[in-house]
Formats: sequence, C-alpha cells, structure tokens
Amino acid sequence: MRDVVIIGIGQTPVGEHWDKSLRHLAHDAIMAALQDADLGAADALYVGNMLSGELAGQEHLGALIADFIGLRGIEAMKIEAACGSGAAAVHVGMMAVASGMHDVVLACGVEKMTDAIGSVTTSGLAMAADQEYEVSQGISFVGLNALLMRRYMHDFGVSKEAFAAFTINAHRNGVNNPNAMFRSAVSEAAYARAGMIADPINLLDSSPVCDGSACVVLAPADLFRSRAKARILASAVATDSLAVHDRRDPMALDAVTLSTQRALAQAHLAHAGVDLFEVHDAFSIMAALSLEAAGFAKPGQAVQMAQTGEIAIGGRLPISTMGGLKSRGHPVGATGVYQIVEVVEQLTGQAGANQVQGATVGMAQNIGGSGATVVTHILGAV
Amino acid sequence: MRDVVIIGIGQTPVGEHWDKSLRHLAHDAIMAALQDADLGAADALYVGNMLSGELAGQEHLGALIADFIGLRGIEAMKIEAACGSGAAAVHVGMMAVASGMHDVVLACGVEKMTDAIGSVTTSGLAMAADQEYEVSQGISFVGLNALLMRRYMHDFGVSKEAFAAFTINAHRNGVNNPNAMFRSAVSEAAYARAGMIADPINLLDSSPVCDGSACVVLAPADLFRSRAKARILASAVATDSLAVHDRRDPMALDAVTLSTQRALAQAHLAHAGVDLFEVHDAFSIMAALSLEAAGFAKPGQAVQMAQTGEIAIGGRLPISTMGGLKSRGHPVGATGVYQIVEVVEQLTGQAGANQVQGATVGMAQNIGGSGATVVTHILGAV
Repeated sequence: MRDVVIIGIGQTPVGEHWDKSLRHLAHDAIMAALQDADLGAADALYVGNMLSGELAGQEHLGALIADFIGLRGIEAMKIEAACGSGAAAVHVGMMAVASGMHDVVLACGVEKMTDAIGSVTTSGLAMAADQEYEVSQGISFVGLNALLMRRYMHDFGVSKEAFAAFTINAHRNGVNNPNAMFRSAVSEAAYARAGMIADPINLLDSSPVCDGSACVVLAPADLFRSRAKARILASAVATDSLAVHDRRDPMALDAVTLSTQRALAQAHLAHAGVDLFEVHDAFSIMAALSLEAAGFAKPGQAVQMAQTGEIAIGGRLPISTMGGLKSRGHPVGATGVYQIVEVVEQLTGQAGANQVQGATVGMAQNIGGSGATVVTHILGAV
Repeated sequence: MRDVVIIGIGQTPVGEHWDKSLRHLAHDAIMAALQDADLGAADALYVGNMLSGELAGQEHLGALIADFIGLRGIEAMKIEAACGSGAAAVHVGMMAVASGMHDVVLACGVEKMTDAIGSVTTSGLAMAADQEYEVSQGISFVGLNALLMRRYMHDFGVSKEAFAAFTINAHRNGVNNPNAMFRSAVSEAAYARAGMIADPINLLDSSPVCDGSACVVLAPADLFRSRAKARILASAVATDSLAVHDRRDPMALDAVTLSTQRALAQAHLAHAGVDLFEVHDAFSIMAALSLEAAGFAKPGQAVQMAQTGEIAIGGRLPISTMGGLKSRGHPVGATGVYQIVEVVEQLTGQAGANQVQGATVGMAQNIGGSGATVVTHILGAV
C-alpha cells in the first residue's frame, strides 16, 4: 500500500447559499483545493453526499461535478454513508491512491440542504435511520437522538443543563473560524433559554441545516513529498446496526469504538498520541457518546470532561476546534471533509486564534446515522 | 497494486419481488456469493444502488445491509453512479483489495424498483440526467434516449425496424437464463407491434423496471489463487457531461471510448482479444452507440452488426449473452454486478446453453445516465 498525503485543502463558508446550487458549491471547494495544491487537474473525483436525490432531484453527482469543474472524462462517483458520506469519500480516495489506481485524487463533500422546505429535509435526514423499523414508526432523526440523550441523563445522572459545555466550547471556537456558520459565543443562560426541538434536545444542542462543500487533494507520498501538508496515518471504517433498538447497548457506540481502535492500530498510536479530535457533534449527546466510545472518557464522564475544560483549545483533548458541527455547521455529506480540512489547518499552523499549539497528530471522526457508520481518519504533521 | 480475483458470485432472479425488500434481496445475493466462495464472512461491503432514497425512503445501505447479513462491524458504504452504480461498487471493491486495505470484499448491487408507482420511478431514473438543464425542461430518461435514437436513424439512415435485431438477440439468450426476467423469445413481428413508449423507442427497445441483486466476492490473487474463478484484468471508469446537449457529439459516447481504451490498456489487450461483451443495452440505441464508441463497430454500423448475427452466441462478438439489460432485466444499481457475474459464468463454463465456446476474456460495461459514467471491467479466465 502506498502512503498517502494530503496536498491541498479547500472549503466554502458554511451557511445558506441561496445563490449557489450543489455543483457551484462543489466547484468552489474543489478549485480552492486544487489551487492550494498548485495543480490544475486530478485523475479522479469521489463526491461525498447524502441528500442530493431527495432535496435536489439529482443523483449522479460524480460525473456532474467532474464535468462542471472542467475535468470531463476523469473517473468520478458518489459515495454515500448518510452523514458519514464525506469521510467515506476520503476513505475511497485514499484507497484509490494507495492502490496505485490513481495519483492525484479529489475527495469532495457537498450538501445543499436549504433549498427544501423543512419537512422534506427532516424526512431526508431520517433516511440515515432504519426506514422499516424506526422511521415507519414516525420518529425523526433528532427524535432518535433525543431518546439517546434522555437515556444518558437517566443512566448517568447527568443534568440537561450540563450538556451546555459542549455547545459553549463549539461556539467559542466557531467565533474565530471565517468558514463557520455561527460565529457567535453562546452562554449558559442562552442555552437554558433555547427552544426545545425534541425534548431534551434544544436548538443549541443541534447542528444546523445548512449548505457547504469541502475538498482535499490526495496523492502518493513518494511522488508528492515536497507538497505534502499532512500524512494520512489511518483511515478506518466500522459499522453498527442502523436501528438503535437493535444495538448491544444504546449507550455504547460500538462502531465508534471499532473504528477508533482500527485507526489507532493503523497509525501505531495510543490515545495519548492524539493532540486534537474533530468529533461528530451533530447533537451534544453524540459528542458525549463519541468521546466515551472512542476511549477518551469513561462511560458517563464525557460531560464532566467538557465542563472542566479538557475539550477546550489548550485542554487535554481539544475537540471541535474550528466550531465543530454545532457552530461551523453540518452540511451532512460535506461534514467529514470539513473535519479533515480543519485537522490539516491545525497540523500546518493555519488555525489562527484556535491553533492547538504543537499539534502533530489530529483525529477526525465522521458518523453516519446515530452511530451506524463511523469513519475515522488520523492525520500526522509532515 | 495487488492482483485481484473473483472468488464467488451470487444473484437473485430478476423480477418483481413483492415479498422482499431491499435488504432481503441483497442478503440473498450476498449469501449465494459467500457460499460460492466457501466463506462465511468478509472484511468490507460496497453496495451499488441508485434509487433507494427516492423509492424506499432509505439511504445508508452499506451499514444496513452489512448488519442484515450478519456482518455488523465491517466497513461498508454505498456507491452511486446512476445506472452505473453496480460496476462502480465493484471498482471500489477492487481498489480496496488492490491497495491492501482489505482481503475479502463484497461488491453487491441491489435495486428495488417495483414498490413505487410508475411516475415516481420515472422521476427517480431522471436523476441520472441533468436536473437543472434537462429534467427541469420536462424530459424523462427514456425521452432523452428517444432523441438519441431519432438522431441516429437520421444521421445513419437506419430504420426503426432494424433495431429489432438487438432485442431478438437479447431475448433469445434470456430464454436460457434462469435468472432472467423475460424468458421468452421475441419475433420481428412482435417488435413491430410493440407499444410506443417515447417515439421511436417502443416497449421492446426498453429494459424493464424490476428488482434484483447480484454480488461478487473479491480477493487478492496471491492469497486466494486456488479459489479464483476469474481474474480482474482491468477496471476503468470514465465520465462525460450528464447533459446530452453539452456533448461534443451526441452520437459519440466519449466516456465509453475512454473507459474502453483505459480498460484495454490495463489488460494489455486489443479489441480482438475480447471474446464476449456484456453491453449496457438499457435501450436498443444504447447497445448500438456502445458498440460503436467502444470500437467494436464503425459509426452507424452497429445495427448491421446485430442484423448479421455477429452479436449472437457463436458470432464474432457475442453480446448480452445471458439476456442483457433487455431480457435478464435492469434493476439499475444492480445491473453492473449482474454483468460481471455473467462474464464469470461464461469464463467458468457455467453459461449452459448460452456458453460462448472457448471464451477466456470477457468485457462488461455498465453505463450511468445516457453515457455520463462508464465503468468497464475486463475479466480473464483462471
């Protein structure tokens, strides 16, 4: 297997891009990444996207976007793993380079969620859950996460208010990220006042519906050593049942555990070797469950870890360093690529006011559904 | 790059499977393939599918199916390239093995199209075309192909009736395939009587709306030499614009040409080295355009090639040897895997009455949209 490096990154601001369609968003991120890599073309394109069929009436994004960016003819296809689609596309791109099939590969995540009315988006997101055994009962995706959060509060005696620490951390970091959707700090008082979405998940527990695209350029280390911005030390995918009721233990995200273990093994690293963690904080409860299942906190102790500042820039394990899904935003199929782009920013000293000093190893973990597909990347500084 | 072999194949009959949902169809094909490989598990699963979101309200098929077949935890994701999704999934699986990321990989195509009312299926299939520049004008996917056929008839002076040769060949072969949807021969008279769908495309020019799933088990040649059923000599993807009006020449499927050239180069073969060709005959016109763009016939001469029997079993280049998309059926995201399964049947002498005698090299070509994504595999006998 050839070692793979990231030689370029690009992203659009996350937000409501009324003036741009899917192909324009992807174009902007890809062009920025190619420019960053000082290249004008690539051999293949893997597009991470979940909802284009449901929300835009458009599948077949691989060829569509390859053509629109001026690279008609190259290999291209769409990769889908619900909200884990972005990192899954990077994983496929990594295999394409590692195998020797291609030298310069684009992995682009793109999602445009704001062109549809809310109920369609809600129905679309529910396609990450089990249609026949969960969604057909009438539950939405946020509803499923609300059940998990309620159970967590019950099992571990954690108050609803304690979860504010995740939101406050994410928004504090988002303030300094020019590509974040919400660049505003959040107080405990604001969290307490936030409108309820699906009890106990309130508006400030929830990542936003938004548009965005991010892209990385992948290449073999031996041919592109001088341009390398970060090394891919690990790329690991694991799965669990979609249906939460069918899990061994709803409080244990087994696929997070598996994916993290596989990634650490690939990278020959222990937990202590990870300097920052871009966590999939689509809801506060997912941040807590992820930290625990990944092995960075004991069961029931992740909220305390957040409250004591261990997750802040400068803490033991900074998470959501550029705002996370909560503040940067969660354009679902693009999110996993944003996370990886942000880890590269950290490892190359481009994270500005949010720079994690001395960071040489960063982990990004992208989750599809409520833990059913988990894609973990570990990147190392060059 | 590690050499990759196919060590197991499986398929469900193509048809209207009212009693089975997506996950059951995929289960049946995967279990058959694993049994054929004499294995009980695999390291990863790539699912080719186009329409599950639109027609079943279900995305996230990778984890869903991995769990349902009893392999919860393994890497899994969905690959989408419109009607080319199946072969695209095989391509990703090939890269996963070639790279060394995984040893035993399942590539499964699955589609369930008959659970939706016709207009929803028609809208879904149109997502293979350009929503903003084609579909928004009101054209359907069969409508686009009808424009291509009309133009072909005009440019090359070919009669509508002459296209019957493709249908007659496909159905003649389908009669002997127990997994084909239509096991009935078609006469020229029946073709002439067939109801018009989108002039000049009639019912017997069109592949059917149907359900089905097919699967191959991929593995590295060096570790599984004794179980190998066929070698993957080439796996090549190429793209073109989705929008037909934006092509260099609507009669030239440039992505077919590119993909074929890339595949032949990978396999170190010339056209004459290909013993049979599973062509993407979603409509008769696509069979004709594919044969020409792939270099097996000169422009405007593919229909004559069909009429003179060169495409029949025993002819110069047998195509659609197990019925093709027309007679075996075209469960869109599964089709590319069916084609590859059928090539393996031919190379292992399992094609029964349709056996192409002495076949040692077979090509399978799966197309997304009206030529926008083309995935070509060349397999060699062991």
